[in-house]
Amino acid sequence: MMVDKRKKPLSLSGEFRWIDRIRNTIGGTPEGGIGIGDDAAVIPEGLLWTTDAMVEGVHFLSSWPMDGVGYKSLASSASDIVAMGGKPLYALLTVGLPLSFSDVMYEAFLAGFEKAMGDFGIVLLGGDTVRSGTLFFSLTVLGRPFEKPVLRSGAQVGDSIYVTGTLGESALGLEVLLGKEIHGEKKEEWARRHLYPPCRVSLMQVLVSSYHLTAAIDCSDGFVADLDHIADESGVGYEVHIERMPVPERERGNSPFELPWSYALGGGEDYEIIFTSPEKIPPVVAGVSVTCVGKIVERERQLFWYGERVERENIRRGYTHF
Amino acid sequence: MMVDKRKKPLSLSGEFRWIDRIRNTIGGTPEGGIGIGDDAAVIPEGLLWTTDAMVEGVHFLSSWPMDGVGYKSLASSASDIVAMGGKPLYALLTVGLPLSFSDVMYEAFLAGFEKAMGDFGIVLLGGDTVRSGTLFFSLTVLGRPFEKPVLRSGAQVGDSIYVTGTLGESALGLEVLLGKEIHGEKKEEWARRHLYPPCRVSLMQVLVSSYHLTAAIDCSDGFVADLDHIADESGVGYEVHIERMPVPERERGNSPFELPWSYALGGGEDYEIIFTSPEKIPPVVAGVSVTCVGKIVERERQLFWYGERVERENIRRGYTHF
Repeated sequence: MMVDKRKKPLSLSGEFRWIDRIRNTIGGTPEGGIGIGDDAAVIPEGLLWTTDAMVEGVHFLSSWPMDGVGYKSLASSASDIVAMGGKPLYALLTVGLPLSFSDVMYEAFLAGFEKAMGDFGIVLLGGDTVRSGTLFFSLTVLGRPFEKPVLRSGAQVGDSIYVTGTLGESALGLEVLLGKEIHGEKKEEWARRHLYPPCRVSLMQVLVSSYHLTAAIDCSDGFVADLDHIADESGVGYEVHIERMPVPERERGNSPFELPWSYALGGGEDYEIIFTSPEKIPPVVAGVSVTCVGKIVERERQLFWYGERVERENIRRGYTHF
Repeated sequence: MMVDKRKKPLSLSGEFRWIDRIRNTIGGTPEGGIGIGDDAAVIPEGLLWTTDAMVEGVHFLSSWPMDGVGYKSLASSASDIVAMGGKPLYALLTVGLPLSFSDVMYEAFLAGFEKAMGDFGIVLLGGDTVRSGTLFFSLTVLGRPFEKPVLRSGAQVGDSIYVTGTLGESALGLEVLLGKEIHGEKKEEWARRHLYPPCRVSLMQVLVSSYHLTAAIDCSDGFVADLDHIADESGVGYEVHIERMPVPERERGNSPFELPWSYALGGGEDYEIIFTSPEKIPPVVAGVSVTCVGKIVERERQLFWYGERVERENIRRGYTHF
């Protein structure tokens, strides 16, 4: 929410960012709630609330399997609730349909959407259906925190940085879906990982009930960009050991500039959870791997290690802009 | 919500309506809540929840004053909460921006949006900002019922049918904004009425706390279409006396086929409240006129009177499709 999914902040006029413009002017925070600046808002009634849009030509192509687009649209919104330590409960679905959008495409979209509803335990309560020159889907999801909401802003110096699952396959899958020349035996698996991302509901429930999580975010913009969000909101820095990053074992390269490191660090849309905790978390929780990749340090220190120190600007971003 | 604002239901393939498709298949109703089929959903936690999208070329043109587009986008969504007998509280705003959307236009949009926030007492808690080939705004609003939610489905035979304020000016204003040849001295006023609709928060608070409202809906599709929604959901019919319809006094024509009757009956986007009650409601409540225009009768009787009986198909719809 309030995050441009294509990495680059929208720069409508030079460096002027509209998200900040809204946050700093008309955005508000009700008493007992939390407004703009996290994965989801917290309303005074205690619920978590988020919205996300997926637009044709920006977030997906109409030539892609529409069941996957349907699945991903709900998974990516629900993931914002999970990243706040909550269970997604209800959704409203708004669809903007051009005349070219066929019944077959819509049926496929709804089939994927319905599968995600079942997988994550979400009930669809309504929405809006409108004509539009550009195909888009806009989702809003409400959820309830398992315990207290886990914010981006609570990371403390000395905390360990953890990542769930593996990173980078979604970005590789995007390249496959865009028809880019990608070498590897798992091309179809990667494409599927892009369209059918996880939503770590059960894992997060166990984590927040058993451990003290100081901050969390879902990995949607890419590991480095999302860790930056935690660092910015918490007023801290970080040290990351790239060789510890959870990329699939068989895909490990020999340098941080090789595939799949670059995809794991900059790829995005993995919808795994990045979180910080002062505690030692076991390597597998609720059947999902949890990897310690670094630690929180003092403000403005942003260090990457791969044996020796790696300059941040040398970390190639694997992500493809449309 | 779940209502096509352009009157004609989306017919993606003949008569097949996607809204019904969703309602009858993947849409759900949680225990203690209300799902698809009303202005807003009611979640088990007791809150009212709605979403609406406004798309360039369908609901507005980019040549229109953007402050009005900003105002209307929030007013029309908030109106769904009011129509359920509730107070709108919080909003999330998603914007889909083409490259051609300038800073000046965005500033104007936000100024209008902010004015609506102030007028209706709504706090903006977040949203999403994305690139899009087509300019669109997608809003979601949460609110709380003043008393119990007022549904579309509670109208009883014998109830009176009431309308707040006046109807038809918004549709006339749309014609003005589209550059149609419209005669009248109030052209600018009508255009303003289209872009700055009311949101009857205070009026509704008084109505639901002082009277028994059996059903309510906001007049967004047009009086006849919206009354049909109440009739359909309640399983009742209606008799309407056209000459009693609250059109501005000076604009009254001499037959139901003349301006402004046709605009009042079919125009839409007035965002006044149509409601039913067994009680006699005073002609002015909270400073707003309330007019009795007919009564609820048995199912499938849909009668219009203007001195003598008027056939439904002869009631011209004043609304203009883009």
